[in-house]
Amino acid sequence: MDFKNYLKERITLVDQALEQYLPAEGKRPESIHKAMRYSIFAGGKRVRPVLMLAAAEAVGGRLEAALPAACAMEMIHTYSLIHDDLPAMDNDDFRRGRPTNHKVFGEAIAILAGDGLLTEAFKLLSDLEVNKDIADKTRLAVISEIATCAGTFGMVGGQVVDMESEGKAELDLPTVQYIHIHKTGALIKAAVVAGALLGGADEKALAAIRSYGEAAGLAFQIADDILDIEGTTEELGKDAGSDSQRGKATYPSVIGLPAARQAAQEMLQNAMQSLQIFGTAADPLREIARYIVERKN
Amino acid sequence: MDFKNYLKERITLVDQALEQYLPAEGKRPESIHKAMRYSIFAGGKRVRPVLMLAAAEAVGGRLEAALPAACAMEMIHTYSLIHDDLPAMDNDDFRRGRPTNHKVFGEAIAILAGDGLLTEAFKLLSDLEVNKDIADKTRLAVISEIATCAGTFGMVGGQVVDMESEGKAELDLPTVQYIHIHKTGALIKAAVVAGALLGGADEKALAAIRSYGEAAGLAFQIADDILDIEGTTEELGKDAGSDSQRGKATYPSVIGLPAARQAAQEMLQNAMQSLQIFGTAADPLREIARYIVERKN
Repeated sequence: MDFKNYLKERITLVDQALEQYLPAEGKRPESIHKAMRYSIFAGGKRVRPVLMLAAAEAVGGRLEAALPAACAMEMIHTYSLIHDDLPAMDNDDFRRGRPTNHKVFGEAIAILAGDGLLTEAFKLLSDLEVNKDIADKTRLAVISEIATCAGTFGMVGGQVVDMESEGKAELDLPTVQYIHIHKTGALIKAAVVAGALLGGADEKALAAIRSYGEAAGLAFQIADDILDIEGTTEELGKDAGSDSQRGKATYPSVIGLPAARQAAQEMLQNAMQSLQIFGTAADPLREIARYIVERKN
Repeated sequence: MDFKNYLKERITLVDQALEQYLPAEGKRPESIHKAMRYSIFAGGKRVRPVLMLAAAEAVGGRLEAALPAACAMEMIHTYSLIHDDLPAMDNDDFRRGRPTNHKVFGEAIAILAGDGLLTEAFKLLSDLEVNKDIADKTRLAVISEIATCAGTFGMVGGQVVDMESEGKAELDLPTVQYIHIHKTGALIKAAVVAGALLGGADEKALAAIRSYGEAAGLAFQIADDILDIEGTTEELGKDAGSDSQRGKATYPSVIGLPAARQAAQEMLQNAMQSLQIFGTAADPLREIARYIVERKN
């Protein structure tokens, strides 16, 4: 498959849907809708929504069934970036090469834009006019999966431990794994599980997709750690080397760069093995896993 | 009815359920679960959950059907208080007579505790093991109603306009109404509408409850404005007169205290009229409306 083209097409599809589902800038209160759109349309890679659509198709479903939920997932991811960048948290001035939300709109609006995006995600997931053909039980299961993975036993919990670990002299691998599995991995897993649910997966397919998501999610964050060392500031759109400067818990800092590279490759292999029960319909998921580990930004 | 006793019993019921549904303090990451519980169990009046239970019973339903959603509503209310109190927002040091969340746990954990509570609310609302006897369609409608009223066209939007109006020389009544209807009213309306849905209301009952919620919600905030002038710091658990010091948009500041009092009474009458189709089953809703307008804190 022509993966580069596939990715481009899927990103366009997701962007168009986000354009449709996000409140228009002109709607009152204008400032917050402008701030929400600023961060949503800041050139994100759309990894989570693209994964969700691919998971829906891998299990034999239609991508349209997963498109609104894919947008909700990107809203949750974006809210987490806005809040993580705040002065009280990571205090980042740049994200994807552009000033962070609070640098443009101020801290108060940035906090509220994050709150607004998180809430809007659940509004979209429960919208009675959107995706009426999806069974109510499936929609509830999707909301439950996403809320669980985004909360304190998932993404939010990972961010807490990440912050609390910052600057600590000795971090062990279990702590770094906890952070990665929760802060980044949980939402990536939720994306593919939700996609599989919306695509009508049976128990066996769902378990395989869940296992794929766990491996791909961890691989994604290990690759991110490695990129922070090897990537250039230009490629990353943020300061290269910022993790180590900050004393962030990363795979390379705990087990060294070669072992981190090996761990990423192992996770990639795990992800691939999880997909063995699927045929060519899962090729996009395979390509995305490879892309996750081998990307340059 | 013995309203004082009723209220006490209902608050105990809600507190017990919150104890059950909130993650235990000992669960990792401990800091955020501690912070979430700190603000949830800070002596709140539980107006929204009590209203939700009363609405379920007013339409002939069982309060047990609404108890988990009532807890979710209190989580959303509490998240909004934690974020509103942040230095970048209202910068409040005290809430209900105790130091605010960020004064105790720091800004980063306070932001994340708010995020965690908001997410936990939707997790609880969609939990597949909780309230299995409620129809899936009803549960989705409840999630949709709550997300809509909590988002940028509801509570979050009201907070945005409130902040943006602060200190402005001339505020008009429509702006103050917008703020009150959205910032406070929306969640109160959502509470009773969700309660009515979970109680099995028909179209006519639902419309009556919605109308009650709109009136009671606005009455609540006008009463709050008046209390800020007339109440003592001790009664309020926060600084009396803080709204006017800050140049906050309030009913008394725009139309004067006597007209504000009259507006609160009118809203109370509207709320009462909305309940005319119900018999004694709606007596608690009537008492709560009265309490909302006549309370001292």
